[in-house]
Amino acid sequence: MPEGEFEFIARRLRPLATAPGALNLVDDAALLDPSHGQQLVLAKDAMVAGVHFLEGDPPGQIAQKLLRVNLSDLAAMGAAPLGYLLALARPQNITDDWLAAFCAGLAADNAEFAIALLGGDTVSTPGPLTLSLTAIGEVPKGAALLRSGTKPGDDVWVSGTLGDAALGLKVLRGELEVPEDARAHLIERYRLPRPRLALGEALRGIASAAIDISDGLVADLGHILEASAVGAELRADQLPLSAAARDVPGARDSALAGGDDYELLFTAPDERRAEIAALARRLDLPLTRISEIRGGADLSILDAKGQAIEPASKGWQHF
Amino acid sequence: MPEGEFEFIARRLRPLATAPGALNLVDDAALLDPSHGQQLVLAKDAMVAGVHFLEGDPPGQIAQKLLRVNLSDLAAMGAAPLGYLLALARPQNITDDWLAAFCAGLAADNAEFAIALLGGDTVSTPGPLTLSLTAIGEVPKGAALLRSGTKPGDDVWVSGTLGDAALGLKVLRGELEVPEDARAHLIERYRLPRPRLALGEALRGIASAAIDISDGLVADLGHILEASAVGAELRADQLPLSAAARDVPGARDSALAGGDDYELLFTAPDERRAEIAALARRLDLPLTRISEIRGGADLSILDAKGQAIEPASKGWQHF
Repeated sequence: MPEGEFEFIARRLRPLATAPGALNLVDDAALLDPSHGQQLVLAKDAMVAGVHFLEGDPPGQIAQKLLRVNLSDLAAMGAAPLGYLLALARPQNITDDWLAAFCAGLAADNAEFAIALLGGDTVSTPGPLTLSLTAIGEVPKGAALLRSGTKPGDDVWVSGTLGDAALGLKVLRGELEVPEDARAHLIERYRLPRPRLALGEALRGIASAAIDISDGLVADLGHILEASAVGAELRADQLPLSAAARDVPGARDSALAGGDDYELLFTAPDERRAEIAALARRLDLPLTRISEIRGGADLSILDAKGQAIEPASKGWQHF
Repeated sequence: MPEGEFEFIARRLRPLATAPGALNLVDDAALLDPSHGQQLVLAKDAMVAGVHFLEGDPPGQIAQKLLRVNLSDLAAMGAAPLGYLLALARPQNITDDWLAAFCAGLAADNAEFAIALLGGDTVSTPGPLTLSLTAIGEVPKGAALLRSGTKPGDDVWVSGTLGDAALGLKVLRGELEVPEDARAHLIERYRLPRPRLALGEALRGIASAAIDISDGLVADLGHILEASAVGAELRADQLPLSAAARDVPGARDSALAGGDDYELLFTAPDERRAEIAALARRLDLPLTRISEIRGGADLSILDAKGQAIEPASKGWQHF
């Protein structure tokens, strides 16, 4: 017989709720004491089995991905994470062992990011496992990075490498064959995004706009351009690719339109280039200048010869 | 062709996001400025079609119930609501018109409770409609009502009437026939709970413990007893029943163990009786003394003759 809800909360969730405001998960809601002079930053993302992750993915990594995509939203705003609330809709076929492994993933990331579970809800569902997480962070008042705020002449930067996660998903679906070491790298990039929290915090006061790349570069750059009412020109051959992705067919399309990379895309005035280069060294994280903001409202994408191209897909609509 | 995600957000959700910190739903996360001296209170509940509401329920009322069960959690802590984040997993069979009516329900409650949508996520699902909402409120620092804190000798109080919602669900399921006016009342009590926010705020400094009745009186009183390490004796014939419920077979069992009433159950020292009676008059809301806290750790339930009884069900486990 599977654990009941209250036993699951007591055995598995309570150990994750180490913040005093979580009230040991005994109460109806959690308490949070915002620090003086800080604004709270709230992000909420949902994930459905078979849609946002694969049924066979390791449960701990599903938990970590759920948490990290939300932390990535905080990173994009320049916020430092404080904690999170979790809602879990459990189908009959999810075993206690599966849940234990799921919670172990959360425990690992609680330690990694110095955060704690604050509260939430567990329910049953006749449908697929459905997860939703609300992450709470804080940022000094007025310092949050937004999608709006960039101006013509600003540089467009991206952290890390692009397209790996979308290639990793293709590998997992059996649609792409790659060498073994590339395989491991691409799958990890799909399953275990790295929220760029340190970068986001460091970009406060430097970046003029920021977003995390969840829908794909073209779509997410489009979000910045729309919010800031500007345009840009992108050179597809100048996007940073990982060693694992570089020789894979379709890597350029994945870098342009593949989602799930959770790198930061940001803009900054050109006089900040030296600071940004220094930041890349300090964080040991490549930061690549990929474009420049200009007037108008269009995003053109050019190939190596300067010819306009259309990406195979413009990115991810969620329903 | 149904609206895409971005169109749905722009047409239906953005008009609900009237708080400045919602940033017009353009950014990855919302900003919130806590008031000085306040603690934030965070509640997150999930609901699944066919489990927590019926597929045929009016969409606007589903939205209102989702919001109100979370506001009820804030009420139980004595908090005033500020806003909320919404995650919506949409199956193919949910039409744009259904979503428009769902959002109209949120709009009505935004006005009713002076709150706004702050952010969230919309995804697709092959399973049933799955909703999760995170409500954010605030309470003066240190003033939150908790489940722990009651002592032997305290009175046990309940607001409103008990068992109506569980009877309303039976009516909707065709398991119970009642006169037409009772039918309307019981169904509304099931579909449209009234979060006791004014009562919760007024009970700060008066109540020694509080909870909202979502799992059923016996289960939720049990939560208070467990959190406070005390016992109580409950007289089943002294529970407040509505005129609609009074003559219905099974009304007493519904009052004891039926969930979904979202009334407040609270305890207070006996010297606060006059204040609480005055509060009931001011709020035009019946507050009934149903029991007294005592030592030990047991909850006994007695019938009109003082004989111990067992309720048909002890309440609601969520999975």
